Amino acid sequence: MARIVMKFGGTSVGDIARIKNVANRVKAEVDRGNQVAVAVSAMSGVTNQLVDYCTQMAPLHDAREYDAVVATGEQVTSGLLAIGLQELGLQARSWAGWQIPIVTDDAHGKARIEKIDGSEIIAAMEKGHVAVVAGFQGIGPENRVSTLGRGGSDTTAVALAAALKADRCDIYTDVDGVYTTDPRIVKTAKKLDKITYEEMLEMASLGAKVLQTRSVEMAMKHHVRVQVLSSFSDVPGTLVCDEEEIVEKALVSGIAYSRDEAKVTLVGVQDQPGVAAGIFGPLAAANINVDMIVQNTARDGTTDVTFTTGRADLERALKVVKDNMKVPCKSIITDKAVVKVSVIGVGMRSHAGVAQTMFGALADKNINIHIISTSEIKVSVLISEEYTELALRALHTAYGLDAA
Amino acid sequence: MARIVMKFGGTSVGDIARIKNVANRVKAEVDRGNQVAVAVSAMSGVTNQLVDYCTQMAPLHDAREYDAVVATGEQVTSGLLAIGLQELGLQARSWAGWQIPIVTDDAHGKARIEKIDGSEIIAAMEKGHVAVVAGFQGIGPENRVSTLGRGGSDTTAVALAAALKADRCDIYTDVDGVYTTDPRIVKTAKKLDKITYEEMLEMASLGAKVLQTRSVEMAMKHHVRVQVLSSFSDVPGTLVCDEEEIVEKALVSGIAYSRDEAKVTLVGVQDQPGVAAGIFGPLAAANINVDMIVQNTARDGTTDVTFTTGRADLERALKVVKDNMKVPCKSIITDKAVVKVSVIGVGMRSHAGVAQTMFGALADKNINIHIISTSEIKVSVLISEEYTELALRALHTAYGLDAA
Repeated sequence: MARIVMKFGGTSVGDIARIKNVANRVKAEVDRGNQVAVAVSAMSGVTNQLVDYCTQMAPLHDAREYDAVVATGEQVTSGLLAIGLQELGLQARSWAGWQIPIVTDDAHGKARIEKIDGSEIIAAMEKGHVAVVAGFQGIGPENRVSTLGRGGSDTTAVALAAALKADRCDIYTDVDGVYTTDPRIVKTAKKLDKITYEEMLEMASLGAKVLQTRSVEMAMKHHVRVQVLSSFSDVPGTLVCDEEEIVEKALVSGIAYSRDEAKVTLVGVQDQPGVAAGIFGPLAAANINVDMIVQNTARDGTTDVTFTTGRADLERALKVVKDNMKVPCKSIITDKAVVKVSVIGVGMRSHAGVAQTMFGALADKNINIHIISTSEIKVSVLISEEYTELALRALHTAYGLDAA
Repeated sequence: MARIVMKFGGTSVGDIARIKNVANRVKAEVDRGNQVAVAVSAMSGVTNQLVDYCTQMAPLHDAREYDAVVATGEQVTSGLLAIGLQELGLQARSWAGWQIPIVTDDAHGKARIEKIDGSEIIAAMEKGHVAVVAGFQGIGPENRVSTLGRGGSDTTAVALAAALKADRCDIYTDVDGVYTTDPRIVKTAKKLDKITYEEMLEMASLGAKVLQTRSVEMAMKHHVRVQVLSSFSDVPGTLVCDEEEIVEKALVSGIAYSRDEAKVTLVGVQDQPGVAAGIFGPLAAANINVDMIVQNTARDGTTDVTFTTGRADLERALKVVKDNMKVPCKSIITDKAVVKVSVIGVGMRSHAGVAQTMFGALADKNINIHIISTSEIKVSVLISEEYTELALRALHTAYGLDAA
């Protein structure tokens, strides 16, 4: 007997037929003798509709009212799934976030879970009942409904798994696991059996879009074993787990990319102490996320500073840089046609030459590197967007990731 | 300064533009210096969609899960209206039923309100804030969301007005008041300025469909002054109030009709004690609502018993009657092409001849009466459906109700 938390995303519960399909999957897990709690997203499209309503009422709206409105999507799905489970002969009931309660802070619209009282859910599971929990939501300090931000149902599931001391948290989605790279681009991409939390974090934040970043952080913190698998097939998925659970560690586990990048270069900035602080302080104050930063060695007393940001933030970032009287520059160059490609692997902690393999493979294809950035378990490069597919395929082969 | 509860139904909040219109109406009430709480229905079509989802999941479903699902419609509207009010510069917040709380019994799907804690709402109103309350719902004894049944938002509004000791409960709807009869049929129908609770109850249950019956009962019990008015025009509506508040009492206030009638006649039933109980006991046990009942004087030791029921219940009622071995009859005659027409007025308590005026007016038009039934403040007749319009116009004129 194991205790399992299952999570189904919006596509998996996209219509009544699919919710019935989910009910069957849950029943199969119960029939295996397991204790089961389920976290569900809103039916696909519903959250967008509700967000759109709020924006139509007022472009800038009270986050607490927004939360009261959008949290209803998951409440609907949880009730419907409970009905579906009962129809299959199971004992089941739904819980909204406030009923459990899932206590969050007061950062409405992107609240963080502070505490989950698992007692009612555990009591239900121990009687053999299925607990269905509305994802994406909790209750804030003033007894008001809060939501966890986009993809928050993953976080609900992982936090619930931690609170229930579940043996595993299965995240059902529309892909059947985590691949070495995007299989739509690289046909030889392989599904990974296992991946570490650290690697998954890099994969998620770099654009692999399988799991919400915060849910992976939470899984890592509480050692929740998370399995990513498809709700539309029956093949095993990818397990996200502690490094110790992975016997054969690959040097590089995967290659991620993100097209949501824009590059800004400040040409001819005075080379003096405080320049970087003078540039990036105002950007931070304007709540603009800056990712990669490069400063070249000075020549003639001036230097060039380049940074990247999300494409949606480019115009705002430019305005901040231009209005910044404290750090004048000769000119500003921007480029939106760029992509960030990253090779990721915990194995590179103990192996030299990983970056060199990357640079060599790209050079072989005549791909110019704009920016390089490294961390303990990844190497990222910014290249022109037109080389995305070529670079991914070349790197996939160079690191020996191609399927046999 | 008055304290007002405003209620807006599904049509009044049918889309974003209409919710904004509602926000403007609420602001106008606040600008008059009044304390305002608002109860809202789901956007039109939403509740039907949610009910349909539940039915698709399982034709017979857990009423508690049904409640969790369908109560979300009103939660969405309440949040959106709060946003709209804030956009107009007002302080506003929404409350779901469980947050207030509106405590109900455990009859999920058709729960009754047991208690409303008005303290938070009153505190908000006294600070000049607008309280927006999700209608149609409450919280049952097991901390689970309950709903009040169709039209329940009217009940929410009236119960809230009672709990808040409001000076008036304004029910905004798609008609601009209560008329002497259906103005689509009788062009000379007049809007009533005032009507007593008792009369409104008869009007509501007889098919005038303006206010939910239970909400009128509750208003009567707690002496809540209820105004019915249009959310699409600015004319005054109809006030439903205690009899004492009405100075000029009309003999007959209105003429209602209901097409949802079916007639069943049991021909040649043995005339002996216990026959009525023998017929209607099984119908009650099968939860079939029986309205009018007539038993003729016996002839040759047998009698005919006629009753009416809702058209949707006719087939079930017939089956119960046929299967009823204890009360055999020679034959059964049914008729669905009937209509019940009623004249209503508290004035008839103290005046004779009201029924006679009705019978005379119908006779003058050669309209045959199938069944007659009377109560303290109404006289109802069952006639063939084809005479509906003719009968309404004749009675409207006979009681002097035609507009000048």
